[in-house]
Amino acid sequence: MNKHGGYIGEEKDEVLDFSVNINPLGPSEKVVNNLKESLNDIHRYPEIDGAKSIKHIADQLKITENSIILGNGAIQLIYLFARAMNFKKILIIQPTFNEYERAFKLAGGDVEYHILYPKSNFIIDINKLKDKMYSTNPDCVVLCNPNNPTGVYFDKDFIEDLLKISKEMNSFLLLDESFVDFLEKKSAIDLIDEYDLFILRSLTKFYSIPGIRVGFGLGSEKVIKRLSKYQEPWSLNTLALKAIPDIINDHSFNKKTLEWLYEERQFMLYELKKIRYIKVFQTYTNFILCRLRKSSSYKLQDLLLKEKIYIRTCEDFNGLDNKYFRIAIKNREDNIKLLNALQTLDIN
Amino acid sequence: MNKHGGYIGEEKDEVLDFSVNINPLGPSEKVVNNLKESLNDIHRYPEIDGAKSIKHIADQLKITENSIILGNGAIQLIYLFARAMNFKKILIIQPTFNEYERAFKLAGGDVEYHILYPKSNFIIDINKLKDKMYSTNPDCVVLCNPNNPTGVYFDKDFIEDLLKISKEMNSFLLLDESFVDFLEKKSAIDLIDEYDLFILRSLTKFYSIPGIRVGFGLGSEKVIKRLSKYQEPWSLNTLALKAIPDIINDHSFNKKTLEWLYEERQFMLYELKKIRYIKVFQTYTNFILCRLRKSSSYKLQDLLLKEKIYIRTCEDFNGLDNKYFRIAIKNREDNIKLLNALQTLDIN
Repeated sequence: MNKHGGYIGEEKDEVLDFSVNINPLGPSEKVVNNLKESLNDIHRYPEIDGAKSIKHIADQLKITENSIILGNGAIQLIYLFARAMNFKKILIIQPTFNEYERAFKLAGGDVEYHILYPKSNFIIDINKLKDKMYSTNPDCVVLCNPNNPTGVYFDKDFIEDLLKISKEMNSFLLLDESFVDFLEKKSAIDLIDEYDLFILRSLTKFYSIPGIRVGFGLGSEKVIKRLSKYQEPWSLNTLALKAIPDIINDHSFNKKTLEWLYEERQFMLYELKKIRYIKVFQTYTNFILCRLRKSSSYKLQDLLLKEKIYIRTCEDFNGLDNKYFRIAIKNREDNIKLLNALQTLDIN
Repeated sequence: MNKHGGYIGEEKDEVLDFSVNINPLGPSEKVVNNLKESLNDIHRYPEIDGAKSIKHIADQLKITENSIILGNGAIQLIYLFARAMNFKKILIIQPTFNEYERAFKLAGGDVEYHILYPKSNFIIDINKLKDKMYSTNPDCVVLCNPNNPTGVYFDKDFIEDLLKISKEMNSFLLLDESFVDFLEKKSAIDLIDEYDLFILRSLTKFYSIPGIRVGFGLGSEKVIKRLSKYQEPWSLNTLALKAIPDIINDHSFNKKTLEWLYEERQFMLYELKKIRYIKVFQTYTNFILCRLRKSSSYKLQDLLLKEKIYIRTCEDFNGLDNKYFRIAIKNREDNIKLLNALQTLDIN
C-alpha cells in the first residue's frame, strides 16, 4: 500500500493539509446531522446492495438503476472492475492516479503506459494516442478526467473521439471522473450505452466525506451485471448509504462549491504564477500541479511542514519526478497561508 | 447477491428480527457517543491500512501486528483470502455460511462439500472428514466455528487434529470464528504460526455494529503479507477504525453479554423443546437451528410475519431443506414474544 491519503502525523489537527483534494466547504451540517441520526441504525446490517440509494442516484442522473453500481469508495470499483473484466493488456494514460496500475496488475493484466509530457502541458495528442493504441493493442484504456494530478480536463468531444477509436479496436475505456463534479455538467454519462465504457464517480471529494467511503460506477447493464457478480455483499456501510440521498440532491451546496472554486482557482493560479521558483500548470479542477525549477519537492515539503503546511510530492507518478508537487485549493484564509509561506521561503 | 442481512420491509422498525445474529445488548452508549464524535473527522481520509487500530487488537490479543489484517466486515476478508491465495481445490464443511463458496468460485476455485447430517447433530466425524480430504485432496478446507447455521462448536483439540491432518496433506485451513466471541476464550489463535491457518473474526455481531462494517483476520506474517498485497487501500471507514479501540477493551460489555447469553440460551432451548412441531438442535452460540417436523419454514415465516416476527429460513444452505429455520437469541421480552407466537400457531 502507498503512503497517501493525507497528513497523518500526531499534530494533524494543527497542520493545513493541501495534499488531499477535498472540498473545504463541507461536509454540510445537514449531512452530518443525518449521519448522526443514522447511528441509531448501526445495529442493523446495511442494505446488501444499496438498492434504495441507487434509486436516488438514478433519479438524479436520469438513468436506469441497472446502469449503476455502488462502491466502498470509488477505489473499490477500480479493483472490482480490473478483477471482473479480466483484461489482458491495459494502456494507462500517465501521469495519473497510481491505483489503476496496481489493480490491473493484481488481476493479472499486462500494463503499458502512454505518457504525457509537461512541454505539451500534459494534453493528449489524439493521433499519438491512436498510434500507441494500434501498436499496443490494449483490451482497455484508462483515463482519469479531469486528470489527477495534472488537473487537465479532456472535453466531451475528445472523449467521444477516443471512444470511437476504442470501438474500432474492440477496446474498453475506464474513465475515472472522480473530480468531474468540480466542473459543471461535463460527464460522459450519456455515452455508457453506446460504447464499452465504465465511468467512476466519487462522492467523497466534492462532498467532503472521504471518511465514510462512498463512490459509484456507471456502465451499460451488461457491464454492471458483470461487476455485481464479483462484488462482495454489504460493501457499503449504513452511513455511506444514508448520505447518498442527502448529498445527491443538495443543489445549493453544489452551487456554492462551484462559485468558491471558480473564484479561488483564479486567485491561486494568479498568485502562484508570481512565485519565481515555481512553474504552475493550468487546472480545471480543485487542485494544482506545480514544478520547482531547481529544488526538490521533498525539501519544499519539509520546509512547509515547519510552517504546519503539508503538500503532496509527486515523485511516485509515472512521468513526473521529484521536482513536482500538488496542492489542493482550499478556502481563502488557508490559501493565503500557503501563499505567504511559499513567498517567504528561501528555496534554491 | 443473496437476499439476506435481516428484514428490510418498510415496517422494519416494528418487526422483531430473529433472522440476524446480532447481540441485543448493544451497541453500547460509549461506542455510539464516540462514533458521534468521530463524525467530526469524516472530512479526512481514514488511515489507509488502519495501522493504529491494528495495534489495539494486537495488544488485546497479545500477538504481533503483522499477524492481523482488517476487513470491511469479515466478509471482505473471505473474498480477499480466496483471491489472494488462489487455491484450486477447496473443501467446504457444510451446511454453512454461503459466501465461502461464492468467494472461492469467483476466484476460479473448484469447490467440493463435506456435508454433515442432522442424525449426527451436524457434528464432524474426524475419520470421515479425513477420508474425504484424502479422496478430494483439497488445497484448502473451510470450517465455520461455531458453525452458522447449526450452532455446533468444535473444540480446540478437534481443530488441532484437523490442522495436523491438513499439514500432512499440505492443505490450508480457513477457520471462520465470526461467532467465537459468544464463547469464552475458545479461539484457535495461538495456532496461527504453527499451521497454515487463517482465522476470520467479526466485531459487528458481538458488538452490535453491522452497520459500520468491521472485521479482522489472523494468520502468520507470511499469509497477512500476501493478503495485504491484494487488499484495496482505505477499505475501512473512519467510524469502523474509531470503534475498534472502544470495543476491543470493553470487558464489562463482554461479561454482560456472556451472562445474558448463558441465561437466555438455556431458557430458549428449554422452552423451544416443549413445542411439539419443532425439532431443536443444540447450540453453543447466539442462534438456534430448528426443524419443523411437517410444515415448511416458508409457511412458518409467513405466519410469524403476521405477528411482526421475522425468522431465517434455511433452504439455501447445502445439506438443509425447506423445513429448517434459524432464530437468533434476543432479550427475554422479545424471546417470549417469539415463544408465545410459536406456541399459539396452528401449523400442520
